Amino acid sequence: MPNEGITLYLGAFIDELVRSGLGHIVVSPGSRSTPIAILAAEHPQLKVWMQIDERSAAYFALGLAKSSRQAVALLCTSGTAAANYFPAIAEANLSRVPLLVLTADRPHELRDVGAPQTIDQLGLYGSHVKWFMEMPLPEANPSMQRHARVIASRAMMTSQTAPSGVVHLNFPLREPLLPDLEHPELFHSVRQTDKAYAEVHRASAAVDQAMVVQLASELRGVQRGLIICGPQDDPAFAPVVVQLAELLGYPIAADPLSQLRSGSHNKELVVDSYDSFLRLDAVSSELVPEVFIRFGAMPVSKPLLLYMNKHPQARHIVVDEAGWRDPTLLVSDRVLADSTAFCGQLIAKLLHDNTKTAGASARSQWLSRWLELQETTASVMNQAAAQPYADELFEGAVVAELQQLMQEGSTLFVGNSMPIRDVDSFWRNDERNIRIMANRGANGIDGLVSTALGFSALGHGTVLLLGDLSFYHDMNGLLGAKLHQLDITIVVVNNDGGGIFSFLPQASQPKHFELLFGTPIGLDYEHAAKLYQGEFARVASWEQFRAAFQHAQQQGGLHIIEIPTNREANLAHHRGIWPVLGQQLKQAKE
Amino acid sequence: MPNEGITLYLGAFIDELVRSGLGHIVVSPGSRSTPIAILAAEHPQLKVWMQIDERSAAYFALGLAKSSRQAVALLCTSGTAAANYFPAIAEANLSRVPLLVLTADRPHELRDVGAPQTIDQLGLYGSHVKWFMEMPLPEANPSMQRHARVIASRAMMTSQTAPSGVVHLNFPLREPLLPDLEHPELFHSVRQTDKAYAEVHRASAAVDQAMVVQLASELRGVQRGLIICGPQDDPAFAPVVVQLAELLGYPIAADPLSQLRSGSHNKELVVDSYDSFLRLDAVSSELVPEVFIRFGAMPVSKPLLLYMNKHPQARHIVVDEAGWRDPTLLVSDRVLADSTAFCGQLIAKLLHDNTKTAGASARSQWLSRWLELQETTASVMNQAAAQPYADELFEGAVVAELQQLMQEGSTLFVGNSMPIRDVDSFWRNDERNIRIMANRGANGIDGLVSTALGFSALGHGTVLLLGDLSFYHDMNGLLGAKLHQLDITIVVVNNDGGGIFSFLPQASQPKHFELLFGTPIGLDYEHAAKLYQGEFARVASWEQFRAAFQHAQQQGGLHIIEIPTNREANLAHHRGIWPVLGQQLKQAKE
Repeated sequence: MPNEGITLYLGAFIDELVRSGLGHIVVSPGSRSTPIAILAAEHPQLKVWMQIDERSAAYFALGLAKSSRQAVALLCTSGTAAANYFPAIAEANLSRVPLLVLTADRPHELRDVGAPQTIDQLGLYGSHVKWFMEMPLPEANPSMQRHARVIASRAMMTSQTAPSGVVHLNFPLREPLLPDLEHPELFHSVRQTDKAYAEVHRASAAVDQAMVVQLASELRGVQRGLIICGPQDDPAFAPVVVQLAELLGYPIAADPLSQLRSGSHNKELVVDSYDSFLRLDAVSSELVPEVFIRFGAMPVSKPLLLYMNKHPQARHIVVDEAGWRDPTLLVSDRVLADSTAFCGQLIAKLLHDNTKTAGASARSQWLSRWLELQETTASVMNQAAAQPYADELFEGAVVAELQQLMQEGSTLFVGNSMPIRDVDSFWRNDERNIRIMANRGANGIDGLVSTALGFSALGHGTVLLLGDLSFYHDMNGLLGAKLHQLDITIVVVNNDGGGIFSFLPQASQPKHFELLFGTPIGLDYEHAAKLYQGEFARVASWEQFRAAFQHAQQQGGLHIIEIPTNREANLAHHRGIWPVLGQQLKQAKE
Repeated sequence: MPNEGITLYLGAFIDELVRSGLGHIVVSPGSRSTPIAILAAEHPQLKVWMQIDERSAAYFALGLAKSSRQAVALLCTSGTAAANYFPAIAEANLSRVPLLVLTADRPHELRDVGAPQTIDQLGLYGSHVKWFMEMPLPEANPSMQRHARVIASRAMMTSQTAPSGVVHLNFPLREPLLPDLEHPELFHSVRQTDKAYAEVHRASAAVDQAMVVQLASELRGVQRGLIICGPQDDPAFAPVVVQLAELLGYPIAADPLSQLRSGSHNKELVVDSYDSFLRLDAVSSELVPEVFIRFGAMPVSKPLLLYMNKHPQARHIVVDEAGWRDPTLLVSDRVLADSTAFCGQLIAKLLHDNTKTAGASARSQWLSRWLELQETTASVMNQAAAQPYADELFEGAVVAELQQLMQEGSTLFVGNSMPIRDVDSFWRNDERNIRIMANRGANGIDGLVSTALGFSALGHGTVLLLGDLSFYHDMNGLLGAKLHQLDITIVVVNNDGGGIFSFLPQASQPKHFELLFGTPIGLDYEHAAKLYQGEFARVASWEQFRAAFQHAQQQGGLHIIEIPTNREANLAHHRGIWPVLGQQLKQAKE
């Protein structure tokens, strides 16, 4: 007994999502969501990705959206299914990734009365979505079909307008739930064209020219500037910010997720080692800046944050199209503009004036000092990664090894806690084009396997580097690799527990430490690989690691490579670097 | 550098939770939550359960709370960690299980500014908790210590007052985070006694005697009454409701989760087979009730719901201490009272009057008919479970087998979708005391492994019966069994996918069915057992099942027994029962 309201109202909704650019929907099985699931599967231009565990499903969608840089939809049934989306939704909304969350719900008469699989879904995700709408019960009439199309169009627009984020639409559905796939008007737009019902025409961000003129004039007189590039993923950004740095004569502190450390752009001014040398008190005191110009989200590096805090007198400019991302409380100028467009306008003005800036008049002492620190530090870090740890598996060296092994055009997805910090310390500037991604909205250790798999699903050669607790947390995500035959190489740094806590003050209080923070769980992940029909290798040397990695890359499919490490030795090795670096920098200066 | 505010404020809070009755806290590792975790571990009367995955942690706490019938606390760090609690919180609040959720948060100056591991945690769980409080930054002075104690006391009271539910307290914490475990005033109550700072004295629920008198008088004249007992877990309820039924001469439709089908109370009037015979249209039409008296949450049985809907003219009394659980929209009388206390008062009045009721004057035709249907149906269902499926593994027969095998005093934890329905159909009245539990607040398929493990952690012999998708969904929960060396036998009915969908209308539309609903995932769960160092058995006959089950019970530890079944055959076997039942009931009547 097909339901015409469901067929035409929900059909129009799904069709308009597709006409507005939606290409992927991640669906979890359920009963109440039946009509939306069937219509999504029926639509010829929409790819359905089935995921059983909704928590993984949502992170998988996040990965698809990051990979494609476009909105991705999610669909689940009513009840706790929808609550499982919550962690990924919080992450997506903070990291400005567009997701459309479609939840099926009981109709009004079955709410808050003990009916099965029913929880209060109105505003379910609270402040963690950009927009929430409770949809009406589906009706077939043309007026309501127009409503469905307008909401679909608006949801796509809202999720993808700066700051991009999450839209949640809740659908009350009453039985019978089956749509009529033979209905002659299914997916027929009321406008009878192939175009969207409502095309969204975006204006490009134009910065106020008077502000650009003034800023260019002011910066022209400032020699000691630092450009800070945090996590961002616009491929057009690197070349322009580099050109801006050259014109201003400022070094660039480039976060590993800024996409500045890899690629063919000029990297002469790109500093990849500040996280190491700014740890040294003498260095961070010596480098007195006059201006910071920041792009992107907050950088990973804590020494960089402390450096900014140490110099509150500096003019502190943040360029951010929308939102307010700054825990330093030091920002003096806030430019509400697209970073790439803003750099372009500032460059145009500086070039137009054709007078040398203070910074670039010659290579200033300031710039020279930064580049000298960079050179020495990069060399020390390379040595630290190479030896004296050649005979054992130092976690920092994993990053250096990966940088050697990874291929042009591939993506490194990095876990939080230790891995992203090690990438910050040990991933050097690289001419090849390698995208480095992470979940840095809320920096959770959860959902990483699923996010990386979603990322890999669109054909990028994806390598995931993460710790053992993080891997365990999202092991369910591995099912996606099996179901959808995805290619991924997962490198698990296994120090059997929470390695990062050894770096924190609680490590000095041994009572309760292993119970609460060390948390060894002692799992043999070979069984996890077998469960999901992946290949597993536990390596005991860098030769074995290289062989396993290359085998994985050649063969495709799911590969899990475990690198067993030791928390105490790792702490000692990391801590051993800073005195050496201090010594080297002192010698270099003398 | 210990922090005195943290030591004394949070110390007072933890201490007062314990003085108010808290015995268990489930902790996940994290940095921001460090002081609360350390103080919880330090408190001599509080048991810390470490769980890495917060989603599992929260369900584990739910299981502990169900098992102990007392509030249990949860603790996690800031960020998405807290969002992972959401599914279990929704379930706990709907099923009226007391949980105290303690989330660590960044202090105000680090909120909504892109600081790491920071999401908006104010009112994080929306309408899904009973009470939310944002705590102040810890301060050591006596006035704030009193505040900590009062909030702890109030949180324990609120979570355990009808309807029990979830309390969420959010703790902004500023570095340094280490408490001073040597502080001489740690855990010292300002009152200098061993008692709680504020004892909560509960009044017992007293029903309005005038109402009892009137109801007793009205029911005395009503012959065709049905007592319906939904899910409930008060061990004092069964004997009194049975006595009430005897006095009124009414049959009891006893949900499998009502705790009425098992135990030493008189089961003469306890009908365990209504879910089967009420499917028959002739039967549900023939049995015209005058009054329904309902206790507990909504029963599992859909035929029972349809039966109530079919007889809207009946007086419809719901006894429920708090809340509003009724999707029938047919309730005519709502008694806001504790079920056990109410039964007791009604019994006292009926006994005091000492005149026979209409129902019990002799065994009425109505009661005789119900008991006749019960007897015939129970016999048909027993046959259905025994044959002609003796040579294959019919899902319904799993329940009958389990009922034979389970031991006095043990607990059967049942998954949603098919397992709970099969338990409803095939679990017969039993003299032994076997607790049957499920997560029926939101009826999700998620979190069941963790809930059952939390349940088993307090020493009940726990058996978990669930489907393969449900098992997969919460496989991470198995780590709890390994870390805490718990005893559990998990029976996985593996029909490789979502078996319940074969019973729904979408099964008639084969297009997209396997993709969206069948969802075979093809995992070999032996690897999951090995990962968590449990024992695994895949059985091919009932003999093997019995042997594996008994081995598991004798040996203890984690045991996973897989019963491979077939979705199509299972559907056919279930559907084959109803014509046979109809035939038998017809013959019995003739």
